[in-house]
Amino acid sequence: MKVQALRWTGDALELLDQRLLPEQVVYLTCRTAAEVAAAIRDMAVRGAPAIGCAAAFGIALEPEETSYAVLAKSRPTAVNLFWALERMRRATDKKAEAQAILAEDIEVNRAIGAQGAKLVPRGARILTYCNTGALATAGHGTALGVVRSARDKDVSVIACETRPYLQGARLTAWECLQEGIPCTLITDNMAGHLMSRNEIDLVIVGADRIAANGDTANKIGTYTLAVLARRHRLPFYVAAPLSTFDADMPDGSKIPIEERPADEVTGYRGQRWAPEGICVRNPAFDVTPAELITAIICEKAVVVAPSRERLLPLLTTH
Amino acid sequence: MKVQALRWTGDALELLDQRLLPEQVVYLTCRTAAEVAAAIRDMAVRGAPAIGCAAAFGIALEPEETSYAVLAKSRPTAVNLFWALERMRRATDKKAEAQAILAEDIEVNRAIGAQGAKLVPRGARILTYCNTGALATAGHGTALGVVRSARDKDVSVIACETRPYLQGARLTAWECLQEGIPCTLITDNMAGHLMSRNEIDLVIVGADRIAANGDTANKIGTYTLAVLARRHRLPFYVAAPLSTFDADMPDGSKIPIEERPADEVTGYRGQRWAPEGICVRNPAFDVTPAELITAIICEKAVVVAPSRERLLPLLTTH
Repeated sequence: MKVQALRWTGDALELLDQRLLPEQVVYLTCRTAAEVAAAIRDMAVRGAPAIGCAAAFGIALEPEETSYAVLAKSRPTAVNLFWALERMRRATDKKAEAQAILAEDIEVNRAIGAQGAKLVPRGARILTYCNTGALATAGHGTALGVVRSARDKDVSVIACETRPYLQGARLTAWECLQEGIPCTLITDNMAGHLMSRNEIDLVIVGADRIAANGDTANKIGTYTLAVLARRHRLPFYVAAPLSTFDADMPDGSKIPIEERPADEVTGYRGQRWAPEGICVRNPAFDVTPAELITAIICEKAVVVAPSRERLLPLLTTH
Repeated sequence: MKVQALRWTGDALELLDQRLLPEQVVYLTCRTAAEVAAAIRDMAVRGAPAIGCAAAFGIALEPEETSYAVLAKSRPTAVNLFWALERMRRATDKKAEAQAILAEDIEVNRAIGAQGAKLVPRGARILTYCNTGALATAGHGTALGVVRSARDKDVSVIACETRPYLQGARLTAWECLQEGIPCTLITDNMAGHLMSRNEIDLVIVGADRIAANGDTANKIGTYTLAVLARRHRLPFYVAAPLSTFDADMPDGSKIPIEERPADEVTGYRGQRWAPEGICVRNPAFDVTPAELITAIICEKAVVVAPSRERLLPLLTTH
């Protein structure tokens, strides 16, 4: 594997600092739960599955009650974080459990990829969003993992840049280049135009939290792509592990939506382009209603036209 | 008027260099048609009506056959450019005609504003796109001109940043701050989320070219907002002068869509964030079909549910 977001040394968690990509490949070393929590909050590590893995190692490094509290507060939307903390709480050997979560995540992503690849036609031009690849997970990826698993079908990727944090432009573009996956970068507002010109065949996105009825919280802008896909009768797939499901959340309306700092919108890194004094909104996620989702691809199954009834068997056996 | 995109000195055209906004207010001096054409191509001046005015002064500066050719090649989509060149060709006193085009544009924009303000409810939260204000015209503005004309109704603006060139973040935000119009900046992919949370009451955009059936070419991303507005049953208005109509274009399918340089997408000014070697698409406009447009607001009328039949009387008397 060429791209690895998390590395465990035995007594430290090394995180590929994704804020510096694609210019620099630098690993941050975390030795305390607070350092891991800060890395999650400040987005050195991001992507729902990778956040879950990182949090698990935060507990492995410091299995204290305060560690659970500081990690639980790092980011609010991705439910994998809370899933991993709960699993770590039940474990007796914390280091072994964190390593198991990491190893399982790669296996789960490969299973998602295999399930999803069956849905991808030969030569498909696949619109994807944010980064859902190896960088967002322990490896392989969710939505981008489906692309990886479908590579022998001569697929190509159209990557939305994903403002404001540019995970598509910086991370997905870089990951695709690293692995030789054909990839074209666009700004988020070009997706509708390309669909109207028949330049997109299907959409696959990841998820940060899936409610029991299939409503899906994911990176801000996902909902817009789902609305556009519906208008153009294109398949809209969500690829996510079962650890991204929140069985206690009946629908998407109560999923907490993180509002991030204004300076992510008014510029990028040191450069500011919006005038001083302008008001800003910066919700980091939105909710796509289940009715716009063609299917949810998880490690156990492809759930077509997801609904509470259709998802229930997966959530109860999980 | 606090904001003026074009100033005529009698023997030079001074253009507010919009590439440098909001950081610097600097006027470029153009003394030849080629200098005006370069300013249009490189986006020192932008916005369909302002491009038309600038081109008229290009001819006033150098009324040669070559001037028409170089100006006509500067940008392909906004039809006001070709409208202005045609009008200049028929005029005998070129300097007087260019000044007349400039003066009329302000009057026309005020008339659009008055027509449009009637459609705006008190307290409306108005989503707008790109920059369609004083900076995009000889003064007052088209879509943002409607907002200006409706100011006594306590309206507020939600401005999409408008990637890749950030006309919303740089120009609309600046123009609103200059004039004390309440304005909140968002990234383009947040509009759908805000609509889903009932935080938008209506959408008003400008236009670069309107076909005879009402199909509207405008800044890339406009089509997406129209699709979202339809889903949320929000009014979607296009505000534009009659000089933006192209009666010879039966529908939107043949409107030329400019593809601009890749470096607008891979970064901003000197800063690059996408990896070297990534493929890029950069269409600068898209086409919104008339069926998604609630009404077109022009200086003579508000055309509800625009169609060839409904627009024909306006185009023949124009």
